[in-house]
Amino acid sequence: MNVEVITIGDEILIGQIINTNAAWIGEQMNLAGISVKRMVTTGDVLEDIIHQLDEAFRDAEFVLITGGLGPTHDDITRKALARFFGVDLVFDEEAFRNIRARFVARGRNMPANNRIQAMIPEGFEVIANPVGTAAGLWYTFERHSKTRFIAAVPGVPHEMRYLVEKEILPRFKANTGTQVNMHRTIRTAGIGESHLSQLLGAYEDVLNDNLKLAFLPSDGQVRMRLTSIMPDQDKAKMALDRLEAYIRKQVGVYIYGYDDDTLAGVVGALLRENGKTISIAESCTGGHVANELTNISGSSEFFKGGIIAYANTVKTSLLGVDDEVLKRDGAVSRAVAEQMALGARKQLKTDIGISTTGIAGPTGGTPEKPVGNVWICYADQDGVKAKKLILTNDRLLNKKLTNTSVLNQVRLSLIS
Amino acid sequence: MNVEVITIGDEILIGQIINTNAAWIGEQMNLAGISVKRMVTTGDVLEDIIHQLDEAFRDAEFVLITGGLGPTHDDITRKALARFFGVDLVFDEEAFRNIRARFVARGRNMPANNRIQAMIPEGFEVIANPVGTAAGLWYTFERHSKTRFIAAVPGVPHEMRYLVEKEILPRFKANTGTQVNMHRTIRTAGIGESHLSQLLGAYEDVLNDNLKLAFLPSDGQVRMRLTSIMPDQDKAKMALDRLEAYIRKQVGVYIYGYDDDTLAGVVGALLRENGKTISIAESCTGGHVANELTNISGSSEFFKGGIIAYANTVKTSLLGVDDEVLKRDGAVSRAVAEQMALGARKQLKTDIGISTTGIAGPTGGTPEKPVGNVWICYADQDGVKAKKLILTNDRLLNKKLTNTSVLNQVRLSLIS
Repeated sequence: MNVEVITIGDEILIGQIINTNAAWIGEQMNLAGISVKRMVTTGDVLEDIIHQLDEAFRDAEFVLITGGLGPTHDDITRKALARFFGVDLVFDEEAFRNIRARFVARGRNMPANNRIQAMIPEGFEVIANPVGTAAGLWYTFERHSKTRFIAAVPGVPHEMRYLVEKEILPRFKANTGTQVNMHRTIRTAGIGESHLSQLLGAYEDVLNDNLKLAFLPSDGQVRMRLTSIMPDQDKAKMALDRLEAYIRKQVGVYIYGYDDDTLAGVVGALLRENGKTISIAESCTGGHVANELTNISGSSEFFKGGIIAYANTVKTSLLGVDDEVLKRDGAVSRAVAEQMALGARKQLKTDIGISTTGIAGPTGGTPEKPVGNVWICYADQDGVKAKKLILTNDRLLNKKLTNTSVLNQVRLSLIS
Repeated sequence: MNVEVITIGDEILIGQIINTNAAWIGEQMNLAGISVKRMVTTGDVLEDIIHQLDEAFRDAEFVLITGGLGPTHDDITRKALARFFGVDLVFDEEAFRNIRARFVARGRNMPANNRIQAMIPEGFEVIANPVGTAAGLWYTFERHSKTRFIAAVPGVPHEMRYLVEKEILPRFKANTGTQVNMHRTIRTAGIGESHLSQLLGAYEDVLNDNLKLAFLPSDGQVRMRLTSIMPDQDKAKMALDRLEAYIRKQVGVYIYGYDDDTLAGVVGALLRENGKTISIAESCTGGHVANELTNISGSSEFFKGGIIAYANTVKTSLLGVDDEVLKRDGAVSRAVAEQMALGARKQLKTDIGISTTGIAGPTGGTPEKPVGNVWICYADQDGVKAKKLILTNDRLLNKKLTNTSVLNQVRLSLIS
């Protein structure tokens, strides 16, 4: 089964945006056991898109095309499809109703130029898009004596993801063969890549062409990606289970989750299980940790809120940090981190309070407290646990690394 | 001048890594006035690479190929090039010395399999790689009656960047015409793509093959990318200035910035210019807005902090929201949004207070207040301005859309 992914857009060719859509599609296809053979990006140029369709269908049985389905003049995918298949663009009443309904639902009039999104290449199936105005398209045809399929979806990431996951992949899957590519991702926090691989010992001995392990470090976490390629699901699962059991035995305490788990999600689930509530006092992370926790649906069950104490006056007035201590030890200190965590716990009346205070950079460092110096603290009914981190010169990375450390501290406290 | 970029690697096709190399190359080419016409990724498969070279050189005068130059069995770019051009792989003494020298410099023996990296397609120029073992390759030839060029560089990002910047781009530039590709991005907030293009009126009349305009919507913002292709910088700039002036006249109030500007960054700069401080009371955005503001280096100058009032008890105890009003109107209401913004302003002693309260979803909606219902508010010495938003069913998207709306509200208030 031969699949080609075509992404349309000048903005990709000039490097203005990174083609994350193609990576996401490759990953989803692969998880579904479908191999992508080629990924191509062309500009918003009618002839180039038509040429690429022709080139793709020399071999490919499936083509997925993303982008160029919007309402403006540079959205020419519908036109290119019509030209390539030698059909007309015809007005589709249902697609039109869907588009209008989206505007009505948001209390707005539909601009006249959205009508063009209801012009569909004749014979194409329209796939309703409940998260945007650009409908997906699906078409089955014969070429070079083979049945072939084409799907077109918008390039806006959340619309693309919705349509590929709910509509396109199921159709693709229904038409593919049986080899199984199974993956599992084990997620760790609190340990670096080399240390992790050292603790794993002689793991390379059990790996082979059909059982692979890759280390993917990012933002203070390391993902281990296990891959097994087997004739059937059971054999693939058994191989992954064996490899995972080995890994758990060696480095279990660093493992916080699997696959799409997030550290915030796992911490949220632990808080819920334990019936605990949490609050947060953030200085250097400036809302990053709270944002991660509230990205979890249903987080209001365990997260009551937080105080972002960027200015020192906010640390004293809202969190009850002692002005004397602030003067003596400075804002980036063990004592202030502890008082912040205790202050959050008390002011927001939660079981657990956590805090972050540090110099995110790139400015604001001193010889004694350089950029990247951070204190985090965890407080509960048993007392406080504070920890110093020495991070990098990169502001955004420091926020992420601090987030990982403080959430991992909550996880370790809840499972101990 | 027609350029194709080919990246080689199974790891890209399965979505394990995002193709940031292609984006970086696109950006560098574009800055050098060279248009990339197509980007293609193929796997580590000999026939696929050879086929793609054949397909690329139907049109392209320049092909840049990255990846597959390492020392392992799946690194087959050298072999593919030799096959495609019908030449042998020959041992290159100097390339070999460079590889060995790298190992010697690090006090290590050269593994035997690195010798394969000194096998070069006959007739190719070897470009020394001072930051890795894989040499770059360069070749000039005639095909379909035109002079054509191919460059091959390793896929390891820092090696690729070094060779492209120092060696490949200068060679490419020396062989291109003088045509200039100039871009400008205009960033808007508070208006949708179709409405924007409608307000722009008959803008399509001024566009042509050398002056283009594309609309790029995401997270409640629309970027307009202007492109001008002209014989020299002055003419290109003049064409962009004229188009921009037209756009400003029609939709100026929606424009918040240019190119790499962010809405939070622009709001931060406005606050600094006006000597104003800001604080925030976040419910449904749960720290997202504060996180955006504190991503800006130096944000402590204008951002004093915030209160994330997720639980209603925090709204009353820390922000002074009236318990009666909360019971009467509910947390997602004009009155509560206003009291939150006023509470933040008062408690954190800032010139401006802003607030967000809503149902981010996917759960928590009611028939009267469905998921996606959000109130935002802006408060300063002159009073409050509250606004209702009707958003989507997607939790993370709703947080981003609310962030855009509330920051845009601050921007509009500061410039009015």
